[in-house]
Amino acid sequence: MIEAAIGIDIGGTYTKFGLVDAEGNILVESSIPTKSENGPEKYLAALADAIKSEMSKLVGDIDLKGIGIGAPNGNYYKGTIEYAPNLNWEGIVPFVDLFTEHFDLPMVLTNDANAAAIGEKVFGGAKDLEDFIVVTLGTGLGSGFVTRGKLIYGHDGLAGELGHTNVYPDGRECNCGKRGCLETYASASGIKRTVFKLLATNKVKTPLRDHTYKTLTSKMITELAIQGDPIALEAYDYTADILGLKLADAAAVTSPEAIFIFGGLAKAGDILIEATKKYFNQYLYPGFKGKIEIRLSDLMDRNAAVLGSAALVWSEIVDHDVIKVPQRLK
Amino acid sequence: MIEAAIGIDIGGTYTKFGLVDAEGNILVESSIPTKSENGPEKYLAALADAIKSEMSKLVGDIDLKGIGIGAPNGNYYKGTIEYAPNLNWEGIVPFVDLFTEHFDLPMVLTNDANAAAIGEKVFGGAKDLEDFIVVTLGTGLGSGFVTRGKLIYGHDGLAGELGHTNVYPDGRECNCGKRGCLETYASASGIKRTVFKLLATNKVKTPLRDHTYKTLTSKMITELAIQGDPIALEAYDYTADILGLKLADAAAVTSPEAIFIFGGLAKAGDILIEATKKYFNQYLYPGFKGKIEIRLSDLMDRNAAVLGSAALVWSEIVDHDVIKVPQRLK
Repeated sequence: MIEAAIGIDIGGTYTKFGLVDAEGNILVESSIPTKSENGPEKYLAALADAIKSEMSKLVGDIDLKGIGIGAPNGNYYKGTIEYAPNLNWEGIVPFVDLFTEHFDLPMVLTNDANAAAIGEKVFGGAKDLEDFIVVTLGTGLGSGFVTRGKLIYGHDGLAGELGHTNVYPDGRECNCGKRGCLETYASASGIKRTVFKLLATNKVKTPLRDHTYKTLTSKMITELAIQGDPIALEAYDYTADILGLKLADAAAVTSPEAIFIFGGLAKAGDILIEATKKYFNQYLYPGFKGKIEIRLSDLMDRNAAVLGSAALVWSEIVDHDVIKVPQRLK
Repeated sequence: MIEAAIGIDIGGTYTKFGLVDAEGNILVESSIPTKSENGPEKYLAALADAIKSEMSKLVGDIDLKGIGIGAPNGNYYKGTIEYAPNLNWEGIVPFVDLFTEHFDLPMVLTNDANAAAIGEKVFGGAKDLEDFIVVTLGTGLGSGFVTRGKLIYGHDGLAGELGHTNVYPDGRECNCGKRGCLETYASASGIKRTVFKLLATNKVKTPLRDHTYKTLTSKMITELAIQGDPIALEAYDYTADILGLKLADAAAVTSPEAIFIFGGLAKAGDILIEATKKYFNQYLYPGFKGKIEIRLSDLMDRNAAVLGSAALVWSEIVDHDVIKVPQRLK
């Protein structure tokens, strides 16, 4: 009998899922298009079918411990997905309540960056750490804060919105409705905006001038930075400066032992990490200097989204040291 | 037999102490000059004598549960005071170790703002809250963050340095060695600097022009603001703008139910609180709007420093739900 957890990561385009054992081995994994425009009920039925179909391929008995779900705007306390801008579901979707019609298992849902943080703790570089931060640099910027070995959920289950802290109050328009949020600078979309700003202010020759705003991707910027393109490198430096400053602010409040960086932009490796470290230490409260490591996530080259969601099951359901069990699990 | 805790608050000039029961009644209280220039040993002997002398005046048996100490740069895990700028002790003072030579009691030491936060939880407005922030606006800006009902101490016991988050990286010189820290704007000394900036840029008539930098106090600014002085009011508005922004950043990360404001500047009451609320909501992540209260501390008119320090004993020693007991208490 193998003990395992189902991990589900809901993205705007695809939903990835997998069956993960307690050591972080992925026994099976697959994905379905999210197609959120058809409404949550149809989507959940398709997801349940796909999971059951994949599981039927497994040989041997599986002792299923639960389902962990990472989702944009996931509310840990309520098991709901609330006003997620990337999904076409309106208002508050009682995700866990609806999904229990398909699976009679304990479920934990939280936002994707929180799931990444738990993944880092259970399967990644934070195994021995009680106080750390995980920052995911995807289309937006997500963050999960762990203190005393547990995620900070805040009073409403929605804590960890480092991406919506203020860089320039009159700055770039953000999807959240504000201006100047960190994620409008330090994210895949943010660095693209930075490149366009730099193309406007510089006259340097660069292949970046051959792209429209629509065709340019952060992946191209990363590849050009690795090749030494001056604008791409300057865009990374600008990103690292702002990210370093806001990480220094976050660290002043929570005093973590390490900050793990994850996501597409992190694929620039040292180009991002070394510059972020430099600025971070420049802006950090002197009493904390030299004590806080900034590093790439240990899960960078693995299916981190599925691992993180499955880790929720090991951390929040199986582990009996749970401090605050969501109401529905009691 | 009355159960009681000793609360000690160490300030740069005076050390206040008192005996506090579980309901927050102060049975006796007094203070001694800190005189830190004579070294920690002499100071601790004088403090122990003063406490014993005050306690001898009490009638009836006292069951002493422990000693709580709030101190600048207090390290919760180690029981040490580390490089405190306002005290003349060099390096790291093993305060708790030294003080056990005078009292054979469990002791908890943390920084003064963390003690204020625990005071708010045990005796003040946060009794029913699990997630909140306390900000103390004194000479500097201190903060204590509570999540899941427990203080965030961070990996080194020194978390909660909101005062040293960055407002303007090239801004005002801070005691910590950086520039542009929040406490150079939002504190008693910060508002004085703001007044001088406004006196330079405006030509408005105000009694504030009759003072040197040395003679002007934040108390005068507060009194003039209450009387309607335009420069004093503008200084409060400028302070509230910056404070509101950085509180919005802190709230985006920890999602508290309430933020309590405390200390000298808070005596301006609504002049500070209403303006801070306005800016806070302007800069806050929209998903959190309307959910987070900003209010004055419930301990404003009581001996909060002593109550907070004593509360540490009730919260961290007597309460058996302690998650992480300092090494020395095990």
